[in-house]
Amino acid sequence: MKERKPLRSEMGWSTTETITVRGYDLPSQLLGKIDLGGMAWLEITGRMPNPQEAEVFNALLVTLVEHGMTPQAIASRLISICAPEAMQASVAAGLCGVGSVFAGGSEQIARVLQDALKDKDASADLDAMAVAIVEDHAKRKAPIPGIGHPLHKPIDPRTPVLFGIAEKNGFRGRYVALLETISKTAEKKLNRTLPINATGAIGAILSELGFPWRICRGVAIIGRAVGLVGHIAEEMRNPIAYEIYERAEKEVAENGLAK
Amino acid sequence: MKERKPLRSEMGWSTTETITVRGYDLPSQLLGKIDLGGMAWLEITGRMPNPQEAEVFNALLVTLVEHGMTPQAIASRLISICAPEAMQASVAAGLCGVGSVFAGGSEQIARVLQDALKDKDASADLDAMAVAIVEDHAKRKAPIPGIGHPLHKPIDPRTPVLFGIAEKNGFRGRYVALLETISKTAEKKLNRTLPINATGAIGAILSELGFPWRICRGVAIIGRAVGLVGHIAEEMRNPIAYEIYERAEKEVAENGLAK
Amino acid sequence: MKERKPLRSEMGWSTTETITVRGYDLPSQLLGKIDLGGMAWLEITGRMPNPQEAEVFNALLVTLVEHGMTPQAIASRLISICAPEAMQASVAAGLCGVGSVFAGGSEQIARVLQDALKDKDASADLDAMAVAIVEDHAKRKAPIPGIGHPLHKPIDPRTPVLFGIAEKNGFRGRYVALLETISKTAEKKLNRTLPINATGAIGAILSELGFPWRICRGVAIIGRAVGLVGHIAEEMRNPIAYEIYERAEKEVAENGLAK
Amino acid sequence: MKERKPLRSEMGWSTTETITVRGYDLPSQLLGKIDLGGMAWLEITGRMPNPQEAEVFNALLVTLVEHGMTPQAIASRLISICAPEAMQASVAAGLCGVGSVFAGGSEQIARVLQDALKDKDASADLDAMAVAIVEDHAKRKAPIPGIGHPLHKPIDPRTPVLFGIAEKNGFRGRYVALLETISKTAEKKLNRTLPINATGAIGAILSELGFPWRICRGVAIIGRAVGLVGHIAEEMRNPIAYEIYERAEKEVAENGLAK
Repeated sequence: MKERKPLRSEMGWSTTETITVRGYDLPSQLLGKIDLGGMAWLEITGRMPNPQEAEVFNALLVTLVEHGMTPQAIASRLISICAPEAMQASVAAGLCGVGSVFAGGSEQIARVLQDALKDKDASADLDAMAVAIVEDHAKRKAPIPGIGHPLHKPIDPRTPVLFGIAEKNGFRGRYVALLETISKTAEKKLNRTLPINATGAIGAILSELGFPWRICRGVAIIGRAVGLVGHIAEEMRNPIAYEIYERAEKEVAENGLAK
Repeated sequence: MKERKPLRSEMGWSTTETITVRGYDLPSQLLGKIDLGGMAWLEITGRMPNPQEAEVFNALLVTLVEHGMTPQAIASRLISICAPEAMQASVAAGLCGVGSVFAGGSEQIARVLQDALKDKDASADLDAMAVAIVEDHAKRKAPIPGIGHPLHKPIDPRTPVLFGIAEKNGFRGRYVALLETISKTAEKKLNRTLPINATGAIGAILSELGFPWRICRGVAIIGRAVGLVGHIAEEMRNPIAYEIYERAEKEVAENGLAK
Repeated sequence: MKERKPLRSEMGWSTTETITVRGYDLPSQLLGKIDLGGMAWLEITGRMPNPQEAEVFNALLVTLVEHGMTPQAIASRLISICAPEAMQASVAAGLCGVGSVFAGGSEQIARVLQDALKDKDASADLDAMAVAIVEDHAKRKAPIPGIGHPLHKPIDPRTPVLFGIAEKNGFRGRYVALLETISKTAEKKLNRTLPINATGAIGAILSELGFPWRICRGVAIIGRAVGLVGHIAEEMRNPIAYEIYERAEKEVAENGLAK
Repeated sequence: MKERKPLRSEMGWSTTETITVRGYDLPSQLLGKIDLGGMAWLEITGRMPNPQEAEVFNALLVTLVEHGMTPQAIASRLISICAPEAMQASVAAGLCGVGSVFAGGSEQIARVLQDALKDKDASADLDAMAVAIVEDHAKRKAPIPGIGHPLHKPIDPRTPVLFGIAEKNGFRGRYVALLETISKTAEKKLNRTLPINATGAIGAILSELGFPWRICRGVAIIGRAVGLVGHIAEEMRNPIAYEIYERAEKEVAENGLAK
């Protein structure tokens, strides 16, 4: 008979008098001593961030919070008018869209960078890596994640700021350098403007911070959860979802009946 | 014909060169200048928190992040093993449970407190209010939200710490006072230990900070989203969801076949 | 020490050679012998429907599948363009909106009818009940669920057909009669056209079929799940979600920048 | 300026007196005339199924409804105890797990079969195709979807029944034949018992019915939505989710405190 695997977790537990979270006493060691961004770091990595890590990580998270009237934000607002009694379901609905197209890019570029630099020492030839990466994507007709932006040209205004914050705190290393090399190599090969976008910057800096690529989407999810709550709060004060629905419904019905 | 209502939102928009979030230039005014908790405040309220507000709000958010192996955390982990390619769906699944039973309590007590103190000036009689609230709940056989805890007795260790942080920053006012009066009144009337729990403290302090009760669940949702990402990150490193599933499946099958 | 409660379920289990679902051998007793509507009945009630029950229940389910370009359908479509690799997340997003406003009405009217007729015998005075229900809602300024429709006047074309199918199969009883009495009473008292809408008819007929009101929303959820998959299938062939998003995003940005 | 793309959809619309769904008048042409499985077919394909198609499609859907205490069912139950007021959120939570591991297999095998048989006429060499498919998967160390089962050996009892229903109705064609050839080829090459499992049978038969592989997951989603409502209905009558949660929470806490 198969033996039971014991259930273990380091996330947290309580006794009558104590509440332990990630090895810390929540009331005396965390409350008032760590901000939400630092707490997110602690939850994901299992250790407290130092001030440099906290500053960089918070900047990445803040970048991810608000992108205006995205499909996810509209979806959350639409669901909030259907089930106003269940705000969590509205946020969950929008979060369901933090997928490959609109928000999964950090994960993808982090994977490319981490795969390329795995087990490589400081003497690794970034130019050769970048050429290989660009050619591999070109051969597969796959877009290179993390570079290019439909609107922000010739640069994404978030990228230099994020790289500056990373540099100031000692986290502008070879992942960032490789992504810069990829961007330049791709621009030359494809003869297009392909600046590093915010998604790319985030993926590269998360790699500098030591986050495995598989968890990068989680960072985007945290940021978006904050933003979606913001949208639902605004929808409560100034509703627009019903108007968006009604216009679409009316146009579809008119076009359908006109046939 | 009905006129179209224009679609307006203050959340954010972009031009080629700028990204505006809540009226601020994201790259130059927010990145590196605000942490995630402050950003959550800005998203929900539309203005920057001052340092006192930021400290208190971060403490509330941090309290909400991690409660150990909750039903929501287990649900997120179970979904993550079914659809590992869609981490957002796992977090969404757990968030769907931030409802009335396990995490909606702050909203409920904030409502009670805000309804009671609405349009009341400083001379309002908190004792009379507390008696009315306790009696109303007793008559409806409804538990009073925000007081009592199945495990943490005689006090919830988070409550004094949160009230201390609130007090230090000037946010221990009449909402907190009313909740304390409710707790004492209920203990006397029901002859039971009914300390203010963390949920109650959060609802009262959010009221002090000016959050309408309807948005309080959003604060819990943000905290839990962070915690659920933490659980999924741990599930990636040290999986236990499959074991939880397999034990339940096996026991149900054995009990079913035994009949 | 608290004793463990054994985990029991009648839903289903498997051995190497058999698969049991709700007490039936799935391959030999269910496949090819029951349709999806009947299977839904079996899942919820634990017994096979007779042909009359199956016909009525299928008609209710079919009514619930497709309501055109609802907020839930738009939300599912929007999420499908964000995470096309996770269709389940798109459907889940739309389903999150099967709440109190757009789809929970059957539950509400079923509750009203079942509460009113509980433990009442055939001699119960429906007129008096209807007056009490209408007056109670008027006093609370709450709309009476199940009657009135913004578009379908003076009748909802689904209602007579559903009642006809119910009658043909022996399920037009006192729940339907009470709802008809409520509709007439409310029309007289409020001096407005308040026909029984499809939601009301479904709630009344589910009550005739013996479904407790608490499970009625589940019937709506099943119907909508089918409809949302239909919308996503159409979105794959003829995408419109991106256009809906882009229009909203552009208008919000223009209105924001114009200030 | 970019022209607006008109919003068109064939799903449905209403006028004061009529309700059109997929081109049919809902009250007079669909209610009482089509069952839920047939309605699902109409929603996805845009046309009514003939009796043969309806029988086969219903059998596939029924197979997908109930698989016992799956991770998705446990997740739905856990969420239902957190937010009992929002049943839709519980079902959505479980549906989020209809992903690659536990329920996406029909999509995967349908893709393999449809890619292989695309533009091939009746003279196509199934043996050569099967060898190529098996070798391609072996080379990539990827399991072949649709064959093999951890429990049901040497055959999955659903497979012959589903193939029998398909054959009786004229839908046992070359997709089924190719999958059978793949199964035999893989068994020989890998020297293991690798029978066609239910997932494989469903993927092959959906291909026979003309469903593009991209929509196959939608069929699984519909089936599972029915099953999850069934689990929540049982959880209402006979709750076990709290026990599952409590055991896991307790064991984790004990193991954590013991360190």
